[in-house]
Amino acid sequence: MSQTTSREVRLAARPVGWPVESDFELVETPLSEPGEGEVLVRNVYMSVDPYMRGRMVDRRSYVPPFQLGEALAGGAVGQVLASRHPGFTEGDCVSGMQGWRECFSAPGANLRKIDPQPAPLSYHLGVLGMPGLTAYVGLHDIGKPKAGETVFVSAATGAVGSVVGQLARIRGCRTVGSAGSDTKVKVLLEELGFDAAFNYRTADLDEALAQACPDGIDVYFDNVGGDQLDAALDRMNPFGRIAACGMISTYNAETPPPGPRNLIYLVGKRITMQGFIVADHFDRLPAFLADMTRWLGEGRITVKETVVEGIENAVGAFLGMLRGENLGKMLVKLGPDPG
Amino acid sequence: MSQTTSREVRLAARPVGWPVESDFELVETPLSEPGEGEVLVRNVYMSVDPYMRGRMVDRRSYVPPFQLGEALAGGAVGQVLASRHPGFTEGDCVSGMQGWRECFSAPGANLRKIDPQPAPLSYHLGVLGMPGLTAYVGLHDIGKPKAGETVFVSAATGAVGSVVGQLARIRGCRTVGSAGSDTKVKVLLEELGFDAAFNYRTADLDEALAQACPDGIDVYFDNVGGDQLDAALDRMNPFGRIAACGMISTYNAETPPPGPRNLIYLVGKRITMQGFIVADHFDRLPAFLADMTRWLGEGRITVKETVVEGIENAVGAFLGMLRGENLGKMLVKLGPDPG
Repeated sequence: MSQTTSREVRLAARPVGWPVESDFELVETPLSEPGEGEVLVRNVYMSVDPYMRGRMVDRRSYVPPFQLGEALAGGAVGQVLASRHPGFTEGDCVSGMQGWRECFSAPGANLRKIDPQPAPLSYHLGVLGMPGLTAYVGLHDIGKPKAGETVFVSAATGAVGSVVGQLARIRGCRTVGSAGSDTKVKVLLEELGFDAAFNYRTADLDEALAQACPDGIDVYFDNVGGDQLDAALDRMNPFGRIAACGMISTYNAETPPPGPRNLIYLVGKRITMQGFIVADHFDRLPAFLADMTRWLGEGRITVKETVVEGIENAVGAFLGMLRGENLGKMLVKLGPDPG
Repeated sequence: MSQTTSREVRLAARPVGWPVESDFELVETPLSEPGEGEVLVRNVYMSVDPYMRGRMVDRRSYVPPFQLGEALAGGAVGQVLASRHPGFTEGDCVSGMQGWRECFSAPGANLRKIDPQPAPLSYHLGVLGMPGLTAYVGLHDIGKPKAGETVFVSAATGAVGSVVGQLARIRGCRTVGSAGSDTKVKVLLEELGFDAAFNYRTADLDEALAQACPDGIDVYFDNVGGDQLDAALDRMNPFGRIAACGMISTYNAETPPPGPRNLIYLVGKRITMQGFIVADHFDRLPAFLADMTRWLGEGRITVKETVVEGIENAVGAFLGMLRGENLGKMLVKLGPDPG
């Protein structure tokens, strides 16, 4: 084994409000040989995702909290350096949940072999990975849009939002997105095929939605909560559906901000608001991968990525993602592409 | 025709905040003979319901707003005095939406003949009427409780809530209710068969729900919104359902109060919150009437009513209902029972 140490990012302190660099530490740690049934992997890309902020809080939730002094975890794709598991051989590309570290040994059962062709490896953390599946089940199974309906998605240039809008377009819907800069709005309109888009930081939300959704909103794919949820409720059509995927606008508040004043519209408009977690929907993975691979091949899905280099910049990438500095999927490149 | 005039309650001003007596006026008005296809009816009972507060506001909603200077409307049951419609004869008992007046002529098509046996006439405005059907579809079709689950209902001694709790018990659920006085809590526990109950005005909501729902809440039937929705979200189980029936705690606010700070639980707990309006579910009327008539006959449903006498007290009954002064269905008796 040529590699004897690895660097990893650990949680040094539980963030209060917005996380800062000093809440994390980068540590060099000895790398153990793979034991029986284990595989040694070097990561090529790791993912930073909004839900990781929630795991930094010490509370019971759908995923256990990160522990102080231990390495963080999250989606990563890499290459097998050595294997003592019959399902893997040196050179295989794999996907797993051991992000935030350069190399690791882990049981083969925790890894999934992925085909490095036809899509770039990084896609398995985005459009072909968890964010893509989140968009797919959230839109289709929770939002249930019909052709001709209007779908509004917030954080529309994000890893999930950018896929939601394009899937809605494929389904024949009017697609409307919000994003946090004029540059992003331009990308939505000119590159991702959205019918309408606006900058939520500068627009009057009610006016912007009235203009972008002349026939109202039938499906709101909510990634942000807060003011945009409030404005969407105002504009929702009767029997509208809200797929509650995340509420990033509230994640870094020391005291959670109050919710929308107009929840009563849920009653009068007979709206269904349904929260979901992608992990409950892994049974949809085969259908998702088949559909998405086909759409990518047909050029019907445009992929956006923001890539930061080196594990020493992983925390910066995470913080930048929370501030909305990424366009498309935010990734950290930890090593060279598979040869 | 012996009756030549009728008294009716009109909307004199649009209430701002809590309605007051002067927002209404009682007017004596000439009674027209029934025309061809019409029926002359004297009301015996009229209903006052929370949703009527919403109709006093001039805005687009699922029911059109009441008009200034015109009689209010709402559920009522009465007896036919004269008929020029082949479907009705003198003495028939009927149900319709011409409440807030003593007598009226209306097309027979707007009326439904009801059987004055075996249940009292007043039940057709409560347990066998719109509130009963609201409880039935909201609990069964929206809340979808399974035997052994915990169902929490707010405003639990109200016309809808008192039925929800008893239906949940019939379905084999743990039933928990909140109400606004210790007397009402006693009724819930001793007369309506609730497993646990608390006074929301005096209890610490989080503590009360923790104690009343040791295994969490699977279905929350929400009649009130506000703080109780917030506390229920805290206590909801994964994959819980919230049937959003009404939010009476907000109806008289001049500025709607902010929503719950913990809506993010919708995501992490994968909760479905679904608003509904009983009028969308009239297809369930036959099943509801069959079930409810049977349960009443078997003594499995206890009915509570608060009856105020005389149309001159109808506004007071409505205001009292908004303040929670009723126990069970709030009714106004407008004339003698059918002979």
